[in-house]
Amino acid sequence: MFFERVAVIGVGLIGGSFSLALKEKKLCRHVVGVGRGAANLKLALERGIVDSIESDIAVAVRDADLVLVSTPVLQFENTFQKIKNILKPEALVTDAGSTKRDVVATARATLGAKIVQFIPAHPIAGAERSGAGAANAELFRGRRVVLAPLAENRPQDVEAIAALWSATGARVSRMTPEEHDQVFAAVSHLPHLLAYALVSDVGGRPNSAQLFSYAGGGFRDFTRIASSHPEMWRDICVANRDRILDELHSYEKKLQAIGQMLETKDAAALEALFAGARAAREKWLNGEYE
Amino acid sequence: MFFERVAVIGVGLIGGSFSLALKEKKLCRHVVGVGRGAANLKLALERGIVDSIESDIAVAVRDADLVLVSTPVLQFENTFQKIKNILKPEALVTDAGSTKRDVVATARATLGAKIVQFIPAHPIAGAERSGAGAANAELFRGRRVVLAPLAENRPQDVEAIAALWSATGARVSRMTPEEHDQVFAAVSHLPHLLAYALVSDVGGRPNSAQLFSYAGGGFRDFTRIASSHPEMWRDICVANRDRILDELHSYEKKLQAIGQMLETKDAAALEALFAGARAAREKWLNGEYE
Repeated sequence: MFFERVAVIGVGLIGGSFSLALKEKKLCRHVVGVGRGAANLKLALERGIVDSIESDIAVAVRDADLVLVSTPVLQFENTFQKIKNILKPEALVTDAGSTKRDVVATARATLGAKIVQFIPAHPIAGAERSGAGAANAELFRGRRVVLAPLAENRPQDVEAIAALWSATGARVSRMTPEEHDQVFAAVSHLPHLLAYALVSDVGGRPNSAQLFSYAGGGFRDFTRIASSHPEMWRDICVANRDRILDELHSYEKKLQAIGQMLETKDAAALEALFAGARAAREKWLNGEYE
Repeated sequence: MFFERVAVIGVGLIGGSFSLALKEKKLCRHVVGVGRGAANLKLALERGIVDSIESDIAVAVRDADLVLVSTPVLQFENTFQKIKNILKPEALVTDAGSTKRDVVATARATLGAKIVQFIPAHPIAGAERSGAGAANAELFRGRRVVLAPLAENRPQDVEAIAALWSATGARVSRMTPEEHDQVFAAVSHLPHLLAYALVSDVGGRPNSAQLFSYAGGGFRDFTRIASSHPEMWRDICVANRDRILDELHSYEKKLQAIGQMLETKDAAALEALFAGARAAREKWLNGEYE
């Protein structure tokens, strides 16, 4: 498992960290970074995150043996269109998209027969920091990477991508795109929406300055993910709209139940809900769900 | 500002840390700790958090020059009843309750003429850790403490309590009980409910083990406050019910608006909301609302 030439399309936190990890493990000879932001690309080059930079996706991909697509997901169609005719027959393509059903559908619709070369993946290593400046070679250590391989993929190619991610220190597992999108709507996409919603709600008040001035450590941690990349999260919302709406409605029902407990002064029910949530979270923190 | 004998009623994270801070700054001679949990009290004594322990509130308060009430707020009435007839005329009483309207109402209803001796306060230094084991002398450094002084209080007594908290490293400010309860319903009480609600929602699913197993750093920080003390938060919900319901309904409206953006595929509105929230949070992190 060694790749002469790797193209990373979108040199942000994930793409940059992937490049650094591969270079550190000597799993490739050369990484070319591609992106829309010239300043970010220049930073990636200066910091040695990539070996060269390129603004034209087609030029970067032409000689690549491995391509990582790590842009916001709504740009995938454009990327696949640009690479479908120039991708080398033996090259592998993988991605870091936070949603999988839409990515797979887009890949099927654009890549044609080359769909066999595309192994969908999702490294679970997001952070509210973004851009090449946040990249680090150890980002994936201990983190999960979900592969959502296609029926068309060759088993040895899927194994190669799995081995690559394992080499970065990640824990690799597999899911169907459907399962993936349901799971991450619940444990990632919805919490991001909820955090954005709270900051938006507080920030829109006439006394928002006073409210923020008394916000403490609980508020800071609860809203950390509201500092995430707006375009990336817009794209996730569009791509996984139906599952996120399901989760939002389930959560709204839970809030209505809590509202009812408050209305009826049902202190025992509130305490039971809090205690149950705390106990579940402690089990999770203790690794009982690994 | 020196207190011969201090009684701390409820030697948890806040009460224990207050005691440690006072002892370290040599602002008192002796701290007696009072509480319901014998094991927690014993730990507090063994770790030198308090100088002696006592199970009877009346005995502990009889000779005290300063009393800190730092139990969950629904226990305040019982505490005030027990101390009202034995409190020394020159002693000061303050508290660490997370709500203020109910605490003030309870104090007025129980303490009679001794209400003059009670200076309400709220140190903003909660954490999901609780109990004497989590106490540390530096807990309040840089944190806010809100005083909600009463018309009956003597100015020099309010100044003494303010100076005491300042000595622990806290930033002291003042609010009315009404203002306090509105502000903390928005920036503290509601976020706690939201975090408990998410963990409860995820934990109640048939596939909760799978969901938890893919929950990452964003979920961990978002739900950190769902590991908070259930009884304490039950009491806060009961005590500040009306304001929390106001905040919950405002938040539910925000979620409905976001649901509508998803339903109508309004990607631009979603991105604008996310970008606005991120910008507001960055301003807050940069200290623009201090």
